[in-house]
Amino acid sequence: MSLATLDSSVTLFEAKAKKGVSFDELSKVVGRDEVAVAALFYGQAKASPEDIKTLSDYFGIDHATLESQLSGFPDRGKSVEMPPKEPLIYRLYEIVQNYGYAYKAVLNEKFGDGIMSAISFSTHVEKEVDKDGVTWVNIKLRGKWLPFSRF
Amino acid sequence: MSLATLDSSVTLFEAKAKKGVSFDELSKVVGRDEVAVAALFYGQAKASPEDIKTLSDYFGIDHATLESQLSGFPDRGKSVEMPPKEPLIYRLYEIVQNYGYAYKAVLNEKFGDGIMSAISFSTHVEKEVDKDGVTWVNIKLRGKWLPFSRF
Amino acid sequence: MSLATLDSSVTLFEAKAKKGVSFDELSKVVGRDEVAVAALFYGQAKASPEDIKTLSDYFGIDHATLESQLSGFPDRGKSVEMPPKEPLIYRLYEIVQNYGYAYKAVLNEKFGDGIMSAISFSTHVEKEVDKDGVTWVNIKLRGKWLPFSRF
Amino acid sequence: MSLATLDSSVTLFEAKAKKGVSFDELSKVVGRDEVAVAALFYGQAKASPEDIKTLSDYFGIDHATLESQLSGFPDRGKSVEMPPKEPLIYRLYEIVQNYGYAYKAVLNEKFGDGIMSAISFSTHVEKEVDKDGVTWVNIKLRGKWLPFSRF
Amino acid sequence: MSLATLDSSVTLFEAKAKKGVSFDELSKVVGRDEVAVAALFYGQAKASPEDIKTLSDYFGIDHATLESQLSGFPDRGKSVEMPPKEPLIYRLYEIVQNYGYAYKAVLNEKFGDGIMSAISFSTHVEKEVDKDGVTWVNIKLRGKWLPFSRF
Amino acid sequence: MSLATLDSSVTLFEAKAKKGVSFDELSKVVGRDEVAVAALFYGQAKASPEDIKTLSDYFGIDHATLESQLSGFPDRGKSVEMPPKEPLIYRLYEIVQNYGYAYKAVLNEKFGDGIMSAISFSTHVEKEVDKDGVTWVNIKLRGKWLPFSRF
Amino acid sequence: MSLATLDSSVTLFEAKAKKGVSFDELSKVVGRDEVAVAALFYGQAKASPEDIKTLSDYFGIDHATLESQLSGFPDRGKSVEMPPKEPLIYRLYEIVQNYGYAYKAVLNEKFGDGIMSAISFSTHVEKEVDKDGVTWVNIKLRGKWLPFSRF
Amino acid sequence: MSLATLDSSVTLFEAKAKKGVSFDELSKVVGRDEVAVAALFYGQAKASPEDIKTLSDYFGIDHATLESQLSGFPDRGKSVEMPPKEPLIYRLYEIVQNYGYAYKAVLNEKFGDGIMSAISFSTHVEKEVDKDGVTWVNIKLRGKWLPFSRF
Amino acid sequence: MSLATLDSSVTLFEAKAKKGVSFDELSKVVGRDEVAVAALFYGQAKASPEDIKTLSDYFGIDHATLESQLSGFPDRGKSVEMPPKEPLIYRLYEIVQNYGYAYKAVLNEKFGDGIMSAISFSTHVEKEVDKDGVTWVNIKLRGKWLPFSRF
Amino acid sequence: MSLATLDSSVTLFEAKAKKGVSFDELSKVVGRDEVAVAALFYGQAKASPEDIKTLSDYFGIDHATLESQLSGFPDRGKSVEMPPKEPLIYRLYEIVQNYGYAYKAVLNEKFGDGIMSAISFSTHVEKEVDKDGVTWVNIKLRGKWLPFSRF
Repeated sequence: MSLATLDSSVTLFEAKAKKGVSFDELSKVVGRDEVAVAALFYGQAKASPEDIKTLSDYFGIDHATLESQLSGFPDRGKSVEMPPKEPLIYRLYEIVQNYGYAYKAVLNEKFGDGIMSAISFSTHVEKEVDKDGVTWVNIKLRGKWLPFSRF
Repeated sequence: MSLATLDSSVTLFEAKAKKGVSFDELSKVVGRDEVAVAALFYGQAKASPEDIKTLSDYFGIDHATLESQLSGFPDRGKSVEMPPKEPLIYRLYEIVQNYGYAYKAVLNEKFGDGIMSAISFSTHVEKEVDKDGVTWVNIKLRGKWLPFSRF
Repeated sequence: MSLATLDSSVTLFEAKAKKGVSFDELSKVVGRDEVAVAALFYGQAKASPEDIKTLSDYFGIDHATLESQLSGFPDRGKSVEMPPKEPLIYRLYEIVQNYGYAYKAVLNEKFGDGIMSAISFSTHVEKEVDKDGVTWVNIKLRGKWLPFSRF
Repeated sequence: MSLATLDSSVTLFEAKAKKGVSFDELSKVVGRDEVAVAALFYGQAKASPEDIKTLSDYFGIDHATLESQLSGFPDRGKSVEMPPKEPLIYRLYEIVQNYGYAYKAVLNEKFGDGIMSAISFSTHVEKEVDKDGVTWVNIKLRGKWLPFSRF
Repeated sequence: MSLATLDSSVTLFEAKAKKGVSFDELSKVVGRDEVAVAALFYGQAKASPEDIKTLSDYFGIDHATLESQLSGFPDRGKSVEMPPKEPLIYRLYEIVQNYGYAYKAVLNEKFGDGIMSAISFSTHVEKEVDKDGVTWVNIKLRGKWLPFSRF
Repeated sequence: MSLATLDSSVTLFEAKAKKGVSFDELSKVVGRDEVAVAALFYGQAKASPEDIKTLSDYFGIDHATLESQLSGFPDRGKSVEMPPKEPLIYRLYEIVQNYGYAYKAVLNEKFGDGIMSAISFSTHVEKEVDKDGVTWVNIKLRGKWLPFSRF
Repeated sequence: MSLATLDSSVTLFEAKAKKGVSFDELSKVVGRDEVAVAALFYGQAKASPEDIKTLSDYFGIDHATLESQLSGFPDRGKSVEMPPKEPLIYRLYEIVQNYGYAYKAVLNEKFGDGIMSAISFSTHVEKEVDKDGVTWVNIKLRGKWLPFSRF
Repeated sequence: MSLATLDSSVTLFEAKAKKGVSFDELSKVVGRDEVAVAALFYGQAKASPEDIKTLSDYFGIDHATLESQLSGFPDRGKSVEMPPKEPLIYRLYEIVQNYGYAYKAVLNEKFGDGIMSAISFSTHVEKEVDKDGVTWVNIKLRGKWLPFSRF
Repeated sequence: MSLATLDSSVTLFEAKAKKGVSFDELSKVVGRDEVAVAALFYGQAKASPEDIKTLSDYFGIDHATLESQLSGFPDRGKSVEMPPKEPLIYRLYEIVQNYGYAYKAVLNEKFGDGIMSAISFSTHVEKEVDKDGVTWVNIKLRGKWLPFSRF
Repeated sequence: MSLATLDSSVTLFEAKAKKGVSFDELSKVVGRDEVAVAALFYGQAKASPEDIKTLSDYFGIDHATLESQLSGFPDRGKSVEMPPKEPLIYRLYEIVQNYGYAYKAVLNEKFGDGIMSAISFSTHVEKEVDKDGVTWVNIKLRGKWLPFSRF
């Protein structure tokens, strides 16, 4: 088992920069959400054999090279230092810090004793410009509810 | 300036337990999202004078007592130990840890150089049961986009 | 929502000590694994209304008192300082530290890209005395395999 | 005394990838549990001279090279950052965090004052598919019980 | 998306040293505050295409090279270890440590429930020599007031 | 020597709340900047005998009580947990994190080898509403420049 | 299972102080090494029923009280903050820090792959005055050698 | 002053491995305890000019090379990460954690107010096989007693 | 053995405040350096029976009370949080941080391989006003040189 | 602005070792205290143009090379890991840990509310052999007293 890491995907970042393509466009090419595609570039999501083939064809990267870099199982969680120093990522962290117990209270009340899975999970980002011309970010998190086993 | 803390709102948790009312129901009483109401119970959101009056009336708590507990500015961030040990809260933290740079990459690309505000911000939780009877949690995060000033 | 904590279950520890009953015996009374019962005493597992009734009857503790202590959702993870200083608990921690990536390698290879759930999860402890009279501890961990969603 | 580290066994990971063989298959070749074999790859278990010979023959790696890499005493514990960021490894860590004192309570009660050894220790992983088609991971931990000396 | 880091701007530091030019002078060349220019050198502020062109022309650095180094989105917060060990930076940190709640108290009282943005933000440094010949540093921080959303 | 702490000035916070007076108004009463007055309430600034007398008279608090609470030397730095979890205070911390080396570079270049004192230091907060009705916070930091001794 | 903690043995420290007896003398009374007796006072060693009886008789402490305090399983490791700030304890810590790998190298070479147990373990302290009148501390550590299991 | 570090003594580890000699044997060659010799290999003990000459002659390493590597003053404490992750070293650390205050209590009582020196210090390891064939490690620590100065 | 702690000497701080006496004056009364006297108040230095008698007589505190508080062995190092947040103490810490290796280089060169003892140690503070009327603090540290044992 | 770091002054350490000269002797050459000279070697003090010229001439190092290494502003505080693991440096740290509040108490009492500067600061080391032949280290710290501004 090899691990797909941030370093090993430098090739992809460079190829993307050279082609001048966005994650949104790549999303259509690969057929996955753009956050998933970005996560794949950072070694935080698993690439299927088809993903590797598609990316290899699209960017004209040697298939064997890309396969050796991306076909392993991701060594997840490596990319972000915690607490995050990066302001954009810190804001997400801050939401957990401020509203953590509020989410727990509401979720336990609504669903019982359990958690929202971060594995059976997807996320999606959308841009919204309201009627006053103000720009808003919408992030959706969707995870399977997992009740604690009684044993 | 006094600070509204978790300890000072023990009164509210007890009143809620005694009345057997959910945050969802309280949401309608107070006219705020149930996560916001829970955050208010944990001293992580600001109560307006109307919120205090509504809660005081609804639970039959002495108005002056509740006002002295909730009218200060929240000392936010105190309630959750980081990294969170609580499994439900940890899963939210893990999402930031795993997808932090993926969010940054997608957001910078879509919106430019800036952050999603955690202040001009709201959040909402929804329960979904899919056609196979599987239960999903949907969490929506909506924050104003703040571009970095050029100076 | 109130939280069931270690402190709030002092009553149970005292009742158990007074009655001189083991977790193994309580396991039969409550109908749950003895680790689950101990976890319940430490506020790390959820008590069902039946559990509360059974324990209240068995120990002769006032039902309302026990219910107010145990009916909340557990604030899990609070009981152990990490890294654990307690030698017995440290040995379990050390197993994760030493064999973490070996488990990951074997599990990813056997099951694909995912995790073993610690929520859809049970555990059981058994005592074994081998033919040479040596005593062994057997701990079984059983968790649902959760594959990462492709999105 | 030299130390066998993760870096020094890159050779083995590459040889395994090239041969397309699983830890399960290697387990049979080496005659050790697959977790032990994986641990050996990560420099977390000691290779005997026979292990080195077997692996050298099997993969066609120069014996002297492999011996210089693997014959030292493992510098254990280096491979995993604690708390683990990797989700799969974190779930194992979380089990210790949540059930640490429950294990201690049950083990002390059952065995007296002592610990389960992580040295006189073995572990084994099994895949289970239940009658509903749900996949479960079973991890067995078996360690000698060591009573505290009275002195 | 590539990230502009401290390492990648070594070119700029060297060019500046060779030309013997100060950040104050560069401030006039680039048309930005000297703190912003220094931040740009440290990969902590975003360079516009014009900034890159100006710097490339001024220092005679190949445009493509500078563009590949600076056109990414800054990976902010990386440059300073916290708590800072550097005495000059520590003094700024100490001001936050000593006066943090005093600032919060005064700002909440004056502006309500919210924060001073560090994104819609600018800063400026000035040298002052008072009538006794004593030298003072004046640092101005100016940030947009962001009220917490009510939701 | 006794230490003036946050706890010991609870009296002052209560008196201020009862009288419904702001730090801005207290600033005029005491003749000190409002941040200094707030710092004094948090035990982070030294009260002079005159300050104690003025506050005692103004709030009608027994002089001896207030003197025993405030006449010691402040045990500074105790009030804020670092990194700060409170969002408003975090933004100030983030400014140091992001611009720390930029400030150092500019200050060293402008003033030579030294630091801005946080002791021979004052700070002032101002509210600004620009022509578009946008509210801005202005924080001024003024510290004596201290050159490193050559020895 | 109750835990014997430092706090619960305040009774013993007081009784010892009142009687003016040393751990050396108590060692003879209890029939255990003086370090073990001191560890027992700090809740870091298990008291047998005979130990409790002996101490109860010797100090004239009510047997039931002492039994409720000492008969639980020790919650070991709680007493010392790590890294230790206490200079005497720090010196022991420093020995591990400086000579850790030297011990490992020598022990692995002499005994093979394994550890010295800290459980099947005893320790003893002796005072030595050499011929020059210099006082030396001799600490002996004796632990069972535990070889890593091959699995 | 140069510092003798772990890295700089790679030469010695290799020479030792090539010659197949143990620290015990080297102990006789160098005339120092085997723990001291191992510490010297790890850059944690000072080599005298005679030690360097002896080792250079014995291993046939160029004298000037070895002198440049070992003649500096050791940068002690670098080799072990604390808390130690290595199980063998952790057991020593655990002894300090569990028995720290017991040692302090016994030593203060026996010797007065002071510490056992870790500088005027020696240590020795011995293997013991008891009459039942059980193998024990004996570690002796001997340090000068240093009373706190009265001033 | 009981431990003399900060808490237990509240009596002394109060007595000193009531009598309005300085550490300098107490220094003459007790016959010890004023830093030692202050350390004694903070539970960081050992009081001799004579010190206790002198202080008891001087302040008119009941001898038995003071003896029970101060006659134990100090639990040193407890009073200061590290890194220190208090600005005055931080400056001392910063000196170690900035000049640590410079001190080591100079001391090793001048004295050989060893350390300056912090146990066989005294310290003294003096006020100096230079000819320009500038006030300087002089702190003298004097410790016995302890060479590392060769073993 | 470039930063003078430990790495960049490797040249100086080598030149010094080759010439076999002590910091004491260099002190006379450069005309600065030997601690300052050592600090300069570690990149913790600023070299003046004259220092660079003197050192360049004395060691026969190319002036431009040395200037490029030493003429920047020191990135202070980088050289020592805190808490320090090096025993000699730890003893200095321990003095701050043990006597921190005693220094604060004495200094505040003697000088008022302020700090001893670590910037307007010098230090000096002296060797003393007392009449009994015992060797002592004397370290003098001299810093300007800085009173807190009243604002």
